[in-house]
Amino acid sequence: MRLIDIDDLDDIAVGGAILGTGGGGDPHIGKLMAKEAIRRNSPVRLVDVDQVPEDGWVVPVCMMGAPTVMTEKLPQGDEIVIAFRKLEQLMGVTFSAVLCGEAGGLNSTTPFIVAAETGLPLVDGDGMGRAFPELQMVTFTLHGVHATPMVLADDKGNSIVLDTVSNQWTERLARAATVEMGGSALLAFYPMSGKTARHAIVRGTLGLAADLGRTLRRSRAKLADPVMTMQDRLGALPLFKGRVLDVERRTVGGFARGEATLEGVDAHAGQTLRLAFQNEFLIAERDGEPVVTTPDLIMLLDIDTGDPITTESLRFGLRVAALAMKCDDQWRSPEGLELVGPRYFGYDLDYRPVEETLVPG
Amino acid sequence: MRLIDIDDLDDIAVGGAILGTGGGGDPHIGKLMAKEAIRRNSPVRLVDVDQVPEDGWVVPVCMMGAPTVMTEKLPQGDEIVIAFRKLEQLMGVTFSAVLCGEAGGLNSTTPFIVAAETGLPLVDGDGMGRAFPELQMVTFTLHGVHATPMVLADDKGNSIVLDTVSNQWTERLARAATVEMGGSALLAFYPMSGKTARHAIVRGTLGLAADLGRTLRRSRAKLADPVMTMQDRLGALPLFKGRVLDVERRTVGGFARGEATLEGVDAHAGQTLRLAFQNEFLIAERDGEPVVTTPDLIMLLDIDTGDPITTESLRFGLRVAALAMKCDDQWRSPEGLELVGPRYFGYDLDYRPVEETLVPG
Repeated sequence: MRLIDIDDLDDIAVGGAILGTGGGGDPHIGKLMAKEAIRRNSPVRLVDVDQVPEDGWVVPVCMMGAPTVMTEKLPQGDEIVIAFRKLEQLMGVTFSAVLCGEAGGLNSTTPFIVAAETGLPLVDGDGMGRAFPELQMVTFTLHGVHATPMVLADDKGNSIVLDTVSNQWTERLARAATVEMGGSALLAFYPMSGKTARHAIVRGTLGLAADLGRTLRRSRAKLADPVMTMQDRLGALPLFKGRVLDVERRTVGGFARGEATLEGVDAHAGQTLRLAFQNEFLIAERDGEPVVTTPDLIMLLDIDTGDPITTESLRFGLRVAALAMKCDDQWRSPEGLELVGPRYFGYDLDYRPVEETLVPG
Repeated sequence: MRLIDIDDLDDIAVGGAILGTGGGGDPHIGKLMAKEAIRRNSPVRLVDVDQVPEDGWVVPVCMMGAPTVMTEKLPQGDEIVIAFRKLEQLMGVTFSAVLCGEAGGLNSTTPFIVAAETGLPLVDGDGMGRAFPELQMVTFTLHGVHATPMVLADDKGNSIVLDTVSNQWTERLARAATVEMGGSALLAFYPMSGKTARHAIVRGTLGLAADLGRTLRRSRAKLADPVMTMQDRLGALPLFKGRVLDVERRTVGGFARGEATLEGVDAHAGQTLRLAFQNEFLIAERDGEPVVTTPDLIMLLDIDTGDPITTESLRFGLRVAALAMKCDDQWRSPEGLELVGPRYFGYDLDYRPVEETLVPG
């Protein structure tokens, strides 16, 4: 067990945004809300999933919506607690622990709001080990956990309970509702037992996010190379260093989709990196060759500060370092690749493990 | 109390479609499902609202969706019972009676499915006295009845519970969900006490629909003029007789919108009638002069058979008679006109009572 206090949230938001592979929302918003919740209550107990009783209910929470919308529309903070409590009431049980749905700048911190307000422990882990754009894209789905009953709440006081025949249907209906609710909604979903959570989650994601953020902060104090520090801490592979030449983005059906082109600098001078994203970075092509494909992680960092670059903050002239990292092993199964592999997202590519396409640097 | 058996449903579907003012769905579909439900169970008791206990729960049901979609996508019949039972379970009460949400070819018959399957009485009345395209457009709203908790069910097994801050928000979220569900969904909503129902409904609509259908059927057997027979039975005003020259329609956000132009015959030779519709006929302009505006009723009948013409069955060359009729008095209040008057639908017109613009014929 590890106590997470107000100051730790800066680190978690930064670390979460790095794991968020360009998506998972603006780090600033979630952090502010989580800090305020801890201030009003007390520090959050971050626990290992094995500490939750096998028959206890573990319930993930997150915000759903397109990051480009989120930056314009601030949630109040209590809607996510309302969603959590409504689900508990609906199920007629008592929840034992909160869980993080996805790592990401925003959604690595939103579960702390619920944990602080309810006094429940927060399980160290999440459903992705990164961020993904659709809500069926969680390791929970691979283990047969159903997304519903699920509660969506908005900032106006509306709430919706979904009961669906598949997690894909949950995504469709929740997405339509979220778009109608103004572009974002707060969710409590995938209720599961502590026993199921033991194997259905990606373990340790929040602790890793906190460590990444702290390590990055300290590296700056020591004037160490922040990108190299992150690469080492993650065990990541160097993918590219370059300058953003061009970004195209459009919001389609509640998603921020787009493509970015980078021209290389330093060792990559003369080379080009093309990144395709849908909230998160999904494909990296170096000089026309696909070198990293979802579900492996593509992370963009500011070349000077090491700060994570989200897809919505990408802009012309930005100097970035791209790192790549292998995803959680659960994603590499045939079922995992069917759910989050390149073909699901419409790319005519087979998944190739990043460690086969990139040489360690 | 009046027992409604299988054969009565043909009459109710026809009469409901006449009151449905061009909308309210295809009469055929609802009728078949209701007949099957009565065949499997027993005739339905159609009761006056005063027969329901004041503290009993009266719950309207209906199908939501664009008629153009409904004709391609047949519901199974039991989804509406599922929606009703889910709402009952969710509220933790026992419902006393079923209510009709809107008069219309489809939705005047869908409540019979629920009444037959549950054995509950069906209240003679509805929430419109006609059909309207949006779900907050019920007299219930004028009496402060909240549309939620509400259950939507689809033909795939998905269901949604809404809990909203206003009936307008219910419409928005339910519409988005209905579109995503494939264009139509089955609803149980506006739960109200028998005491509230006594003043919040439009009374007698289903009995009237049955009488209209039976009268029309008998008029044919007697070789009487069916249009004149309907006009007399309704106390309606003659608006136009003509031939359909042109129909433009488009499906926008789950609604069938459009305009139809008719060239006059007989006494109306040389005149033109323009009808604007959004699922239902909303505005009638005769020679450029608006003569009937929502919420008053515009009803199109086949000039030879008296059969009601829905907006989706409008086509070139059809010979029709248009009748107009005053709406229920509840709609003529300032609140009523705000909810369903011409300006709500985007027409730059003030409402003028039909009896002031049309002379009795």
